[in-house]
Amino acid sequence: MKKLLKVGIAGMLSLGLSQVANAGGDMTEDAIEYRQAVMEIIVWNFRPMGKMVKGKIPYDAQAFAKKAENLAFLSHLPLEGFIPGSDKGETDAKSAIWNNWEDFKAKLEAFQQESAKLAEVAKTATTAKGVKSQFIETAKTCKGCHKPYKRN
Amino acid sequence: MKKLLKVGIAGMLSLGLSQVANAGGDMTEDAIEYRQAVMEIIVWNFRPMGKMVKGKIPYDAQAFAKKAENLAFLSHLPLEGFIPGSDKGETDAKSAIWNNWEDFKAKLEAFQQESAKLAEVAKTATTAKGVKSQFIETAKTCKGCHKPYKRN
Repeated sequence: MKKLLKVGIAGMLSLGLSQVANAGGDMTEDAIEYRQAVMEIIVWNFRPMGKMVKGKIPYDAQAFAKKAENLAFLSHLPLEGFIPGSDKGETDAKSAIWNNWEDFKAKLEAFQQESAKLAEVAKTATTAKGVKSQFIETAKTCKGCHKPYKRN
Repeated sequence: MKKLLKVGIAGMLSLGLSQVANAGGDMTEDAIEYRQAVMEIIVWNFRPMGKMVKGKIPYDAQAFAKKAENLAFLSHLPLEGFIPGSDKGETDAKSAIWNNWEDFKAKLEAFQQESAKLAEVAKTATTAKGVKSQFIETAKTCKGCHKPYKRN
């Protein structure tokens, strides 16, 4: 319990006062909706990249690069939505997140790093083959975090 | 009708093949959900900036600058969600958008420009007063587009 409280307070501090004061009546609900919206936009960008890599749609270098750039930026947005107490409610987030906060953050950082690399590779790649291995590395970081920390 | 078709086809082309192929069964529904998710994240960033400007919460220069940077980036995301035909369904978007596509795009571009300026100003501002006028200019571009093109 003491550990949980500590994590909670550290979380509040790392989010900053403005974030805590961000939401209205139900802060937890707002935070859950926020991070789900972020994930939705991540998927929106990720999915067509996957289709290009798999050859289901033609490789469009400019579009792929743009989506990879979006992804790298978006990867920095989810964290502030994981406020303490937001494992309760309409969410697939497991309590394990807050019990393993440093590990959760490390896994999110892996996603940030790999998607930044993907954006870099995509700038000059001209074929799906050119982005494939880094796309797979990035996809692994999604799974790497969802498996321990997301229900379903 | 001919004009509408033209706008529709131009819209499809400007979105690119990958975007059109982005969604699964119900492309329109996905596009509506996508742009609503973008708007939610925009509000999540915008609201605490407003509270700082109004003095409801203390001015946190670093947090404000980060949110302004997010906003400037996010302002480029909504457009691709306004695919032809997505005025039907669970949306507040008016058909007027597709009937006045160039004007709609210009209004969205005004938001992009003003939020980019806000991000620039926020980099060096140390007080709420320092960002206030540019924050107001940015807020005007929200209203400027919502008034003609959004229900409610």
